[in-house]
Amino acid sequence: MCRLEVVRLDLGQDSYSIIVGPGVISDVSLLSPHIKARSVLVVTNETIAPILLSKLLNTLSNYDVGSVILPDGEQFKTLDTLNMIFDALLSENHNRSTTIIALGGGVVGDMAGFAAASYQRGVPFIQIPTTLLSQVDSSVGGKTAVNHALGKNMIGAFYQPQVVIIDTNTLQSLSKRDFASGMAEVIKHGALADIHYFNWLEENLDDVLSQEANALSTAIRWSCEIKAKVVSKDEKESGIRALLNFGHTFGHAIENGLGYGQWSHGEAVAAGMVMAADLSHRLDMCSMEDALRLKNLLRRAGLPVIPPPEMSGKFMDLMLRDKKATDSGLRFVLLNSLGDASLVDNVNKDLLQKTLDAKDGLFILD
Amino acid sequence: MCRLEVVRLDLGQDSYSIIVGPGVISDVSLLSPHIKARSVLVVTNETIAPILLSKLLNTLSNYDVGSVILPDGEQFKTLDTLNMIFDALLSENHNRSTTIIALGGGVVGDMAGFAAASYQRGVPFIQIPTTLLSQVDSSVGGKTAVNHALGKNMIGAFYQPQVVIIDTNTLQSLSKRDFASGMAEVIKHGALADIHYFNWLEENLDDVLSQEANALSTAIRWSCEIKAKVVSKDEKESGIRALLNFGHTFGHAIENGLGYGQWSHGEAVAAGMVMAADLSHRLDMCSMEDALRLKNLLRRAGLPVIPPPEMSGKFMDLMLRDKKATDSGLRFVLLNSLGDASLVDNVNKDLLQKTLDAKDGLFILD
Repeated sequence: MCRLEVVRLDLGQDSYSIIVGPGVISDVSLLSPHIKARSVLVVTNETIAPILLSKLLNTLSNYDVGSVILPDGEQFKTLDTLNMIFDALLSENHNRSTTIIALGGGVVGDMAGFAAASYQRGVPFIQIPTTLLSQVDSSVGGKTAVNHALGKNMIGAFYQPQVVIIDTNTLQSLSKRDFASGMAEVIKHGALADIHYFNWLEENLDDVLSQEANALSTAIRWSCEIKAKVVSKDEKESGIRALLNFGHTFGHAIENGLGYGQWSHGEAVAAGMVMAADLSHRLDMCSMEDALRLKNLLRRAGLPVIPPPEMSGKFMDLMLRDKKATDSGLRFVLLNSLGDASLVDNVNKDLLQKTLDAKDGLFILD
Repeated sequence: MCRLEVVRLDLGQDSYSIIVGPGVISDVSLLSPHIKARSVLVVTNETIAPILLSKLLNTLSNYDVGSVILPDGEQFKTLDTLNMIFDALLSENHNRSTTIIALGGGVVGDMAGFAAASYQRGVPFIQIPTTLLSQVDSSVGGKTAVNHALGKNMIGAFYQPQVVIIDTNTLQSLSKRDFASGMAEVIKHGALADIHYFNWLEENLDDVLSQEANALSTAIRWSCEIKAKVVSKDEKESGIRALLNFGHTFGHAIENGLGYGQWSHGEAVAAGMVMAADLSHRLDMCSMEDALRLKNLLRRAGLPVIPPPEMSGKFMDLMLRDKKATDSGLRFVLLNSLGDASLVDNVNKDLLQKTLDAKDGLFILD
């Protein structure tokens, strides 16, 4: 067994560990301390099931394991699909001591987590995230939810897992584009919170992209640690957790403006971060050099660093409709320097417009 | 304003008060400290709305108040009906600072409470229970849930309100049968936990039944206090909270055996408590005198004190299917004496059968 990386989330009696390494999904000794009784329900989807389900079932051969295979895709993150999990739990007579395991990306984790939070008012839950994005983002922090026709993630719970098992080998089946999307969040963590991490990423990006085992584990562990630090201070998302939205106000506008699914979340956030860096520079916050270092690292990871041309003229309206952006005037997460972000209210609208136009000769978005 | 009775639930940062008195629904000063922002959504049902909604809206005239009127009945306690609340919240642009108020009985409270727990992962919640049963039972303890086709209360959350407002005047519109059903839980509280309360009920039952204001408030406050004491020690229902199920194992068998809705929950629990007292006596736990005092008080309250004849021969099978009853052998809440109950595992099946037959000359169930 290779070296394992472990992050401990300190949330009082809801504390838990994130265990990172290649092949950990096959090691029952990492799972069994967190399974309270014999019965387990694995929730996965139709894409992941053929690749990983039998491997996990093998690992859990000493337990009574049922499984439910959900359709794949954000459009199925609904109360109706959630009910498929409850149907399985009840028709197989699962009781309060059953452990629910999420095997999949963010959508599976969100739905299995909310099902675990709600089934009989709460049963134990284990996350096995299988995409880079879910490994460094949604698996940390206990946010679970489904969408409603009138809004994303509108129905859910804060619910912490017993343990998060991150098997870096699961990323081998990920498309290059999906891997890059996860890298947007990885780079985001360095940019907003830790210059040492950002420096390390600049030096080790090629190893991470080629999924060299130790580099990949280090990056995931480091990202989880940064997110964990923020979440521990602000479990219910009232304050500094907002810093994790660096790049997201612009990014959401891109996702909305193009129609969901055109650009991936990570792609939209990547361009959004460069726009935020541009705006930070215009506000005399971060240096041109730092903004360009961020842009270059994102580009090396295979991510877009300027917004799509179709967005021209569309940003301001879309952002004014974004509640998170407008609750306190125009609110953005901006960079003081690489590794140091701040929440800034009442951003000057003229300067913002310049970032949106990005045709005034400033180098960053040209 | 009459005298108010107040019970404080001590649950750390989730602590809250239960305020009991006639007319309190019209006193905005009791509600306003617990409403965080201007926007409020009242959840009620089609039976309660014509009687109480306009009164509550009057009280809240300084707020932006929406309302959603659910169909009345346990059969509508589903994810689909829950979605009606989410539809209202989203179509009226309610955000995380909105307060949800439940105005109605246990079903409304359960659904509005679960909606509050889940909407945007949790918004503030106020309970205004309008039936005696919900006032002394479901309004205390933070259990919220909806039913699933395969089981009752299978999907829900533990979620505490900001405050519970109990207006004893709302009981005037309750049918005699519904009032009596609530009295089963009132008497249960005395029987399982507090001989002084039981004595007081024996002396003041007529005043409580005629809804004399002070007697009614005292009974509701005392019942809430007993439930609150148990809940505070065991918020997530792992141990002594089970004592509150006194009479319920037999009662659930009656509800199941007759078909839900034939006997009310309170009626089934009333007969179930007498059966539990009978069994307690057979096990040399409680005296014949105590068992008969319980039986007589329930009868005075207009409740059945023997199981329906149709149940003859049906109990054992139904109880063996009841998980709560069988997890640790045959488990029952039994009486040591009035005011003192215990959880007893591995009850002797022959003695239990005698309680079920109740034709061997023992006085209690004859």
